[in-house]
Amino acid sequence: MPYFSKDKIESLEHIYRINLINSCSGFKSANLIGTKSVSGFENVAVFSSVTHMGSQPPILGFLLRPITVIRNTYENIKETGFYTINHIAESFLEDAHHTSAKYPKEISEFEVTNLTSEYKNDFYAPFVKESPIKIAMKYVEEYAIKANGTILLLGEIQSIFVADDLVSSDGFIDLSAARVAAINGLDGYAVPTSQQRLTYQRPKENLNLI
Amino acid sequence: MPYFSKDKIESLEHIYRINLINSCSGFKSANLIGTKSVSGFENVAVFSSVTHMGSQPPILGFLLRPITVIRNTYENIKETGFYTINHIAESFLEDAHHTSAKYPKEISEFEVTNLTSEYKNDFYAPFVKESPIKIAMKYVEEYAIKANGTILLLGEIQSIFVADDLVSSDGFIDLSAARVAAINGLDGYAVPTSQQRLTYQRPKENLNLI
Repeated sequence: MPYFSKDKIESLEHIYRINLINSCSGFKSANLIGTKSVSGFENVAVFSSVTHMGSQPPILGFLLRPITVIRNTYENIKETGFYTINHIAESFLEDAHHTSAKYPKEISEFEVTNLTSEYKNDFYAPFVKESPIKIAMKYVEEYAIKANGTILLLGEIQSIFVADDLVSSDGFIDLSAARVAAINGLDGYAVPTSQQRLTYQRPKENLNLI
Repeated sequence: MPYFSKDKIESLEHIYRINLINSCSGFKSANLIGTKSVSGFENVAVFSSVTHMGSQPPILGFLLRPITVIRNTYENIKETGFYTINHIAESFLEDAHHTSAKYPKEISEFEVTNLTSEYKNDFYAPFVKESPIKIAMKYVEEYAIKANGTILLLGEIQSIFVADDLVSSDGFIDLSAARVAAINGLDGYAVPTSQQRLTYQRPKENLNLI
């Protein structure tokens, strides 16, 4: 079983190190975040750090690394207060991944890919039309992470659009049926084709334990 | 396309609401966090919020909801400073999910499931023997999230153990080959059977844009 000690991790070559550390936490969500600047420039960028933070109020968080292209996303959210989260599905993986390229703010990723900007219900930020699950988000707060200078940005869900036949009678959204991707590391995309739901767990009775 | 407005989300029945909001952020990582109290009681619990926070230093974060069974995990980490993150694989999904049952601190989930506690290299906290990817973690810092009272806990990777044949020559860990699960919502487990890696993206040239 390969073993990476702390010393070994610190001495790894840069690309090897970021691949290893980015893939060691498990599968990650695959989302496109859509924003629009006050001057009207649209932006859409791939993120793998969108995390469920709580259901009441409904809060999602994601992480920004200040020195990357992600700055357009951050600036637009700070300027306007609104953004969209759109799930990446199998049918547009390549275009979604291409949004990681570093374009200047004046060039919209909607213009250089087949992704389509869509406005719904007068919400300020653009959705990704091709996405099976789209969420309208409003900025809430942010945390500057001391350990590494990243920013955790939290937003509240304003509304959710889900493609037909994905929501079960108990509210569960079937991401496999939506052909939604999960991200492995920096550049791996897996599309689970099936899944199972397990029941709510209670302690086992009659344990022969003292 | 089903639409959930803010008002509708607020008026949803509790179970429907938590299923919807927990599954709307995309696939989540599937991990078991192993801890041991100062008095020697082992604990292992399923978490779906482990997130890559940065590679240099190598930091992973996860979210704790103070009013759940997760408290054993939090108390043990705060008391001892150490914990382990172990990926959940297809072969032990049911046992991993069962660790979500609320057992008292004196009963270890290792005793009531087929999961096996394992100690490696004198690290204080127990690993899960069956897991293909195991990470030794040291507490770094935490953030109290104002929006909902949860806690974001950050730790630094101390070492990583990866099963044979999972690490590519560039450091990428193939989670699909490991049969590692992704979590959908509160109780859905998907195991991607294949995946693709896409290349590093640079802006397209010769764009016909003004």
